[in-house]
Amino acid sequence: MPPPHTTPPATAPNVAIVGATGAVGREMLAILHQRRFTHGTLKLLASSRSAGTVIECCGRHYVIEELTEDSFRGVDLALFSAGGAVSRRYAPLAVKAGATVVDNSSAFRRDDDVPLVVPELNGEALNDFSGGVIANPNCTTMIVLMAVTPLHRAVGVKRMVVSTYQAVSGAGAAWMNELEQQARDFAAGRPYTTDVTGRQCLFNVFSHNSPIGPDGYNEEETKLRRETRKIWNDQSVKITATCVRVPVLRAHCASINLTIAKPTSGEEAKRILEQAPGVRVVDDRQANRFPEPIDATGVDDVLVGRIREDTSQPPGMGLELFVAGDQLRKGAALNAIQIADLLL
Amino acid sequence: MPPPHTTPPATAPNVAIVGATGAVGREMLAILHQRRFTHGTLKLLASSRSAGTVIECCGRHYVIEELTEDSFRGVDLALFSAGGAVSRRYAPLAVKAGATVVDNSSAFRRDDDVPLVVPELNGEALNDFSGGVIANPNCTTMIVLMAVTPLHRAVGVKRMVVSTYQAVSGAGAAWMNELEQQARDFAAGRPYTTDVTGRQCLFNVFSHNSPIGPDGYNEEETKLRRETRKIWNDQSVKITATCVRVPVLRAHCASINLTIAKPTSGEEAKRILEQAPGVRVVDDRQANRFPEPIDATGVDDVLVGRIREDTSQPPGMGLELFVAGDQLRKGAALNAIQIADLLL
Repeated sequence: MPPPHTTPPATAPNVAIVGATGAVGREMLAILHQRRFTHGTLKLLASSRSAGTVIECCGRHYVIEELTEDSFRGVDLALFSAGGAVSRRYAPLAVKAGATVVDNSSAFRRDDDVPLVVPELNGEALNDFSGGVIANPNCTTMIVLMAVTPLHRAVGVKRMVVSTYQAVSGAGAAWMNELEQQARDFAAGRPYTTDVTGRQCLFNVFSHNSPIGPDGYNEEETKLRRETRKIWNDQSVKITATCVRVPVLRAHCASINLTIAKPTSGEEAKRILEQAPGVRVVDDRQANRFPEPIDATGVDDVLVGRIREDTSQPPGMGLELFVAGDQLRKGAALNAIQIADLLL
Repeated sequence: MPPPHTTPPATAPNVAIVGATGAVGREMLAILHQRRFTHGTLKLLASSRSAGTVIECCGRHYVIEELTEDSFRGVDLALFSAGGAVSRRYAPLAVKAGATVVDNSSAFRRDDDVPLVVPELNGEALNDFSGGVIANPNCTTMIVLMAVTPLHRAVGVKRMVVSTYQAVSGAGAAWMNELEQQARDFAAGRPYTTDVTGRQCLFNVFSHNSPIGPDGYNEEETKLRRETRKIWNDQSVKITATCVRVPVLRAHCASINLTIAKPTSGEEAKRILEQAPGVRVVDDRQANRFPEPIDATGVDDVLVGRIREDTSQPPGMGLELFVAGDQLRKGAALNAIQIADLLL
């Protein structure tokens, strides 16, 4: 029996986006359009609650379909971004139906047989891939590693101390809307709306909203350690992080302190980063111009600056960086579609 | 000739606040009132531009006088917070007129004969003080050291890696007002007002607005290193910092990573901090409650939490903390008045 495709999948895969109404799902749709990704059918899937609604993207209108066990018939590529529970239930069904799954949740990232891929950094992890699930790394991990991996390859990173400045949209589009609402509440002299976030986000800073393990690290911090080791295929690298949310709509920042193996000046580090793919150096000391979330928003590249030698370590053995990256784009949607490009 | 005081200075000093219309000056006035600081005359000094204006504090009204070379006749205690240039010009005149100066600027902090004092941490630096200028440390340094010094005394801090989340009011009351204005601009759908800050502060994060030295560190970062070494009287401690502004009205936060000399668990560190003066532990992992700038605002104590062992260092040799402190209170005005208390 011939497959139900109208176009051969090798050249124009039938695509499904699971979680199409979410912040990342909408970004996936926009990026498919912006990159003129050649696809056959395009299914936008979400919960029954959203089924039938119409979303607009790049001048076109799309009808959301309900995600069911039968949704993946004829689908070649399924991009999942609807949370771990949805991925755990539906990704195996998509694989069984013959689709390759690129999953943006953390559901399968730790599985030995699931490659965890950032195309610019470890595309080779797909060399032996023979179908199934590919995991998209955590957004913070991705943004940090886009800058740190080129340095690691060149001069060997032994230890990394990270403090993050994460946008509220990392917790979903509803958080971003509520932060905007709080600005309007402030202007109107009203009490802050806290229906979604349960707290004042405007004019505030707070610890990342993920559960904390017995070692005192929250899940976001643990993901950075665990996923870096998997992407680098190096269990020896030492990583500690403090993940914090700031009242920013979109794009995460991170302050990164590195201990390195090979003596390297700030200037040499800058040269390495200037040649790294997917990275843009923004480092003007005279003008005090460095990476900012508003400049990283909607941009594919991760911005990196404040590049300098760390004077608290033996000469040449430490580096400091500050990065900003759009966690919905390179941190999620763009990376998933770059993985699809690499597969095709 | 008897001094022109109506009350003996030892019990009720005549006080002058230089820079009384600024964010820190106003806070000094409020704290004098709140702490029922016993003083003789109280002079509120500012530039000729502000002379004659009336400011309100705690239900009273005060007339601002012009700062001149003659302003300090009869003044016993002069609290300066009008920037380095004003301090350099007028503090020597105040000292010559017989006043003790507590200076909140960075003008004299590096001078060997000027004590740099946080009363809870190194009050003994005033033991041999025989008049002249006492310097108030930089606000970020003060907030970080309130939490780190008790640990240093107990277990020996060898290296400190700091990333800050600093309120815009650290750059002056006008910045705070403009951040609020930008929230109103957002709500009204207007372009952002940037007359004072020259940039979008709302929904953004940006590198600290101080000049950058040849080593790539900005002045705020350099102050943290230099002033910590002076307050601890220890030139060997290693310190690196990345100082960043966030869209917060008031109260600075910092993520702090420590390398220590004596093996210490997170629980032991927490016990040390629970007993430290001027520090309040806010560390509820279950409820995800940690120090936040909105909770530190208007509060004398520095809040500390996220206290945990750093798993990226050999067991017991590293600690992580997150602090929040009101940089206008403990970070500036309160500390100056605590110094005055200690002197009297």
